[in-house]
Amino acid sequence: MPKKRTEIPLTGITVKKEDDFSAWYTEILTKAEIADIRYNVKGFVVYREWATITIKKMYAKYEELLEKNGHLPLTMPSLIPESNFHLEAQHVEGFTPEVFWVTEAGSSGKLSERLALRPTSETALYKMYPFWIHSYKDLPFKRYLSCQVWRYETKMTRPFFRGREFHWIEAHNVYATMEEAMDQVKEDMEMAYEMLQEEFAIPIIFFERPQWDKFPGAVATFAADVLMGSGKVMQQPSTHLLGQNFSKPFNIKFVDKDGEEKYGYQTCYGPAISRIYGAMIAYHGDDKGLVLPFDLAPIQIIIIPILFKSKEEALLNKAKEVFNLFKNHYKVKIDDSDDSPGSKFYNWELKGVPIRIEIGPKDLQKHQVVIVKRHNGEKLVVKEENLINKINEIAENYTNEIKHKSLIDFESQIEECYEKDAAIEAINNGKIVACGFCSIDKDGEKCAEVVEKDLGAFVRGKRVGEEKREFATCLICGEPASCTVYLARSY
Amino acid sequence: MPKKRTEIPLTGITVKKEDDFSAWYTEILTKAEIADIRYNVKGFVVYREWATITIKKMYAKYEELLEKNGHLPLTMPSLIPESNFHLEAQHVEGFTPEVFWVTEAGSSGKLSERLALRPTSETALYKMYPFWIHSYKDLPFKRYLSCQVWRYETKMTRPFFRGREFHWIEAHNVYATMEEAMDQVKEDMEMAYEMLQEEFAIPIIFFERPQWDKFPGAVATFAADVLMGSGKVMQQPSTHLLGQNFSKPFNIKFVDKDGEEKYGYQTCYGPAISRIYGAMIAYHGDDKGLVLPFDLAPIQIIIIPILFKSKEEALLNKAKEVFNLFKNHYKVKIDDSDDSPGSKFYNWELKGVPIRIEIGPKDLQKHQVVIVKRHNGEKLVVKEENLINKINEIAENYTNEIKHKSLIDFESQIEECYEKDAAIEAINNGKIVACGFCSIDKDGEKCAEVVEKDLGAFVRGKRVGEEKREFATCLICGEPASCTVYLARSY
Repeated sequence: MPKKRTEIPLTGITVKKEDDFSAWYTEILTKAEIADIRYNVKGFVVYREWATITIKKMYAKYEELLEKNGHLPLTMPSLIPESNFHLEAQHVEGFTPEVFWVTEAGSSGKLSERLALRPTSETALYKMYPFWIHSYKDLPFKRYLSCQVWRYETKMTRPFFRGREFHWIEAHNVYATMEEAMDQVKEDMEMAYEMLQEEFAIPIIFFERPQWDKFPGAVATFAADVLMGSGKVMQQPSTHLLGQNFSKPFNIKFVDKDGEEKYGYQTCYGPAISRIYGAMIAYHGDDKGLVLPFDLAPIQIIIIPILFKSKEEALLNKAKEVFNLFKNHYKVKIDDSDDSPGSKFYNWELKGVPIRIEIGPKDLQKHQVVIVKRHNGEKLVVKEENLINKINEIAENYTNEIKHKSLIDFESQIEECYEKDAAIEAINNGKIVACGFCSIDKDGEKCAEVVEKDLGAFVRGKRVGEEKREFATCLICGEPASCTVYLARSY
Repeated sequence: MPKKRTEIPLTGITVKKEDDFSAWYTEILTKAEIADIRYNVKGFVVYREWATITIKKMYAKYEELLEKNGHLPLTMPSLIPESNFHLEAQHVEGFTPEVFWVTEAGSSGKLSERLALRPTSETALYKMYPFWIHSYKDLPFKRYLSCQVWRYETKMTRPFFRGREFHWIEAHNVYATMEEAMDQVKEDMEMAYEMLQEEFAIPIIFFERPQWDKFPGAVATFAADVLMGSGKVMQQPSTHLLGQNFSKPFNIKFVDKDGEEKYGYQTCYGPAISRIYGAMIAYHGDDKGLVLPFDLAPIQIIIIPILFKSKEEALLNKAKEVFNLFKNHYKVKIDDSDDSPGSKFYNWELKGVPIRIEIGPKDLQKHQVVIVKRHNGEKLVVKEENLINKINEIAENYTNEIKHKSLIDFESQIEECYEKDAAIEAINNGKIVACGFCSIDKDGEKCAEVVEKDLGAFVRGKRVGEEKREFATCLICGEPASCTVYLARSY
């Protein structure tokens, strides 16, 4: 046995998710062959086959929805001249600490200007928009890029959650009015619900982020948080109202119906597909391994003939027969390897294959198969004549079932707090705190620093659409509260 | 002849492809909104919406074929430590002049080691292979990446043909024997024929490249050339037999059936999708604009109601009716803008939309439509009851028709030459020269330099599968010929 593999025991995830999330997550990535952290540049990982296939499917779904909503794709260079960054002051300030710089090339040595590996594409794309946008007839101008970005993260990295290179979609839109731009922000939030909640089965909640936590250069940022349980949240797609903050320095103007030249109103939107994938593993995975939404599984049905010497050929033929029933509609595979049935079950559970079909000698005799659903272990004995209907039914309901099963109820996670000590206790007990806050404008940042220091939590912002909770005073400074915010620990 | 972009008249391509290919190509890219060369980093261009959509379709087709042939996808980091490059001597020598280097990051300044923007992924990926390959059971190991690469080109760049960032697929395989590796090279060539000739309608010919022109680190390189007409060729997918040149320094070993540890035999393969896209524009495009294979067109059918005031509503309704007939099977669009019918025809011809359906008042009366095929301008009047069948028929045959129409016959391009002067004349007359050559090993490089200097042509190599042509002596040095080679000018 080669050494490298034996370092982690081959069978079973050895840590319970509830006991030690980090260790559990690392084991699942390794044992299900999802990511490899041994690549020799710090903060960069390899996405293995199983992850790459699912991430491609996630991209396809998100792109389809964006296109349905009128976005067209573009391909942008990944290098951005340093001078582009300097056009928007907050943007350069926000991103400079995170930029990888290309400074040399080929044998000729130093470049005349440093080139950034894009940490986000505003300053590349918005340089081009004046070439393409001239008249109100060109608006709305809705475009998206599917690409990777690079950020020199100084925080601890974790595959898919936070890395120095990650894979996302960024949409960049221009409108004639602020109202239309704000409508786009709403559409972006709806798309996030449709994708994350409906397709990927991850429930999210949108918050308007405090000013000190907004996208550098934005007027306002609306970001989704996934409740990961135990009061922790993980930021997911965010959409940013840019107003005219970029259109002015980048000179993105249009001649309006009234003949006047005006600056456009902009929005940008960034679902980080690789990060959503990480949330999906973390959210749905269990102590046996991955659980995947049906559509996203690289293999959806695994057929395992329980091979006995005397019946081997008949069993394999039956497996092929079943394979042929489904091969045109699902991703299906026969595992006819030499491994024991038990280790096959274990392996495909680890990988999160939604449906297992077992065929043993007794089943053969009785014209039946055994079906096992990965997400809840439910076992069904199904007569051959009902097999197609049954599989179709399971396939159709599978994602909905994991969605409902694993739903973390937002309200049950919340504790309303009126004093800092109570809030500290609530956070330590794995709760999300709802409380009054003096301000999510610049003024409130001091109180937010106290929250971070004393509670180990972050101000997630004002819940979008929230109306029911009201507090008289700020949890931290005791001044009159201007809003209700939520405090939570985060990944 | 217009000097600057803004001076190019808005309507019509002003240059004939035959008269000035470069000017024609630049105009088509600009007017059909395919690429934008105004991005402010030299050698980098924006792929616009129309190009991005087609390139995505090309990726999907190539990936599907690779997966059908047993390749699985991976996602690799795009930064490679400089030390990785130094493991294979020819490789580092070959690529160092072309590498962009990341040397700084964030506020912390200089990195401890320079990181290359991948010019190709061998030295990233092969560092990982020993972690994943242990036994003969892990072989064949067939993987591919869909990604972009960066090369600091010093030659003149041209969008899609040659740029400092381009988009490709690279496949990297490991086998137990040299024979199996060589079979993979053959499969790679077959895939290139299937994709380029069958799907993208671009005829290719494979040559074994001379040793001085092989991939740095390879044992042998087999590369496809597209005949672009007038004796010029353009290199397309190439596949490389690496033997054990990388497996030894990168320590890619497996325990064979006999219990012995052996080094793997490798191949790599690089279809550059963005470059194939460029070839497709150049090869099929005509003086009216783009011609696209049917499957690859972002819009496949454009419906143009010839609007007359009195009949406006009836015509629009008919257009919608026709749209509904096809919307589930094809990418179809109604152009009901205010432009004149003529300018609509012109615009969609420029964009290469394969089928135009015109509906005028007279057609309405006669229950018919007019169909025009983009690639040959053929006009058909079709009764409504036959419309579905007719469109399906055109859609099915369209790509085949452009394939046959535009076929440049290899043999008709060839001139067999026995003396340098005759070869110079043949090249100047737009021919490809077949001739005897002393050697495509290192020894022949001096003669190849003469070919480059005196003929302005390149030794493309030995034609794969060639048997019929034999020459006694080398065209250049007059020594006995070891093989027949082809000389051609190239893009």
